[in-house]
Amino acid sequence: MGAGLGGSWADGSTRSAIEDFVGRVTARGPDFVEPADRVAVFDNDGTLWCEKPMPIQLDFTIRRLAEMAAADPELQQTQPWQAAHEHDLTWLGAAMVKHYHGDDADLKLLMGAITRAFDEVSVEDYDARVTAFFDGADHPTLGRPYRGCGYAPMVELLRYLEANEFTTYLASGGDRDFMRPIAGQLYGVPPERIIGSALGLTYRAEEGRTELLYKAAMDFFDDGPEKPVRIWSRIGRRPILSVGNSNGDLPMLAFSGLPDRPSLRVLILHDDADREFDYVAGAEQALEEARANNWTVVSMKNDWTSVFSPAVT
Amino acid sequence: MGAGLGGSWADGSTRSAIEDFVGRVTARGPDFVEPADRVAVFDNDGTLWCEKPMPIQLDFTIRRLAEMAAADPELQQTQPWQAAHEHDLTWLGAAMVKHYHGDDADLKLLMGAITRAFDEVSVEDYDARVTAFFDGADHPTLGRPYRGCGYAPMVELLRYLEANEFTTYLASGGDRDFMRPIAGQLYGVPPERIIGSALGLTYRAEEGRTELLYKAAMDFFDDGPEKPVRIWSRIGRRPILSVGNSNGDLPMLAFSGLPDRPSLRVLILHDDADREFDYVAGAEQALEEARANNWTVVSMKNDWTSVFSPAVT
Repeated sequence: MGAGLGGSWADGSTRSAIEDFVGRVTARGPDFVEPADRVAVFDNDGTLWCEKPMPIQLDFTIRRLAEMAAADPELQQTQPWQAAHEHDLTWLGAAMVKHYHGDDADLKLLMGAITRAFDEVSVEDYDARVTAFFDGADHPTLGRPYRGCGYAPMVELLRYLEANEFTTYLASGGDRDFMRPIAGQLYGVPPERIIGSALGLTYRAEEGRTELLYKAAMDFFDDGPEKPVRIWSRIGRRPILSVGNSNGDLPMLAFSGLPDRPSLRVLILHDDADREFDYVAGAEQALEEARANNWTVVSMKNDWTSVFSPAVT
Repeated sequence: MGAGLGGSWADGSTRSAIEDFVGRVTARGPDFVEPADRVAVFDNDGTLWCEKPMPIQLDFTIRRLAEMAAADPELQQTQPWQAAHEHDLTWLGAAMVKHYHGDDADLKLLMGAITRAFDEVSVEDYDARVTAFFDGADHPTLGRPYRGCGYAPMVELLRYLEANEFTTYLASGGDRDFMRPIAGQLYGVPPERIIGSALGLTYRAEEGRTELLYKAAMDFFDDGPEKPVRIWSRIGRRPILSVGNSNGDLPMLAFSGLPDRPSLRVLILHDDADREFDYVAGAEQALEEARANNWTVVSMKNDWTSVFSPAVT
């Protein structure tokens, strides 16, 4: 085993739990795991980057909805395009909050619009749109670009695991193809290791040109019990380490391990109003399970000496 | 660039076409491609291993159908369980031949049975069943175990590409989870680089135990226009090299490349009745496209000095 975790992790039991686990599975001994089976999966929103006051993808999509509304007066009278057109973030934020409290009506309106927002756009055009968004967009309250909203300790953890011959994956409820163009710069994780939700795709070949175009329909929403399904589909192995921050990550965390093999489950607790945000809404069950099963809970406030990575340029 | 292709490739224009392409994309120059973008995809049945007289997976499934029929007299009177129970390979073979000629009725019966064959089986149990099958089953006519039915020149090609910093993937119409347990031994390709058809999966957590169970329904059939969709979903990049052998590989081959980037499309031609099989059924359009677009056609008879790898033990 090489050096330990980087300097943005404070000394203490959390850092030790991670380093001890990695030490055990990499040292020849009863807990040794072959490098090929050292699979680590990471949720994204609230785990690798900031998800408040709203998921970054939502901001991207709102801008697209506003663009659509600007071109279509009828949409200007229809939610959620109306909210996007009028920059009414209250309506949009409330839809997410209601979702966390079990009321999905507005979220369904929003999801319906999201699935229509990129109808017939090609995967390459979408990539270019996402790249352009991250070139210019800033976080609404943190005073930094979205490119600077990744958590420095988590990037250090990714590198630390890879240095110990783990293979790292994102396993997010967010759109797979929204994360792919930026995950290399922010996290050093390439497109083939990004698992996430997906719109359906259609193949079209015309005049010697081949394209993949998004449909106006989700293929699947990669959250809750769908996460283990998508992890298996993509990797074909059970993870031995997983990191999440919300109730939707519970099945992924539970699936990450077998009774006869060591595993580490980690939950990120947002308890740092000064440097980031302080909230447990949407994570109540996850925290309960973490305590009941002795999973590792990361306090942003106490376990991280710094929170954000410098913005990638 | 290191050494060229291995000794099971005969000297000639086919071998040169492959080596020239790899030389161009790896040498700093106008056709240079970054290692991360050197993605190569391979069909499996008829491209990496023998698919005659029937796909190997079909033999595996027939044995499962026979096992089901043995336990259920009603199934013994119902196709395709009846054929499996009576070892009536004619009915089953004819279903595949009809499929290649556009008549899908019997294939649909068969696919319906295949989707029911592993209902509620866990991914780990399925893995064990596949492993046991390959421990014992022999090819019906070639006088070798199925483990010895991979093509030696293709395994050499995989290693040659990887030595030149390509990342190789299987992209097969066959079942993803049928290939995963054996592809490491046969081809040196790990589970996370196996793309293929898939049954739906259900996540179940009970008494602290988590499982993924197959549904009695396909999630998708990874053939024809679905191949580019699944390649994108898994990799998030367009391949620059693809190898197939049938009409169902055409969209994958067409999708593998962009106008401004070098690409190599390869078609395996089964023209070797002495050492393997001689057939073009199911590959007519593919051969036509290959000739029209100057793709590389591999003659098994002329371009390969040997056909089969030694059986893995």
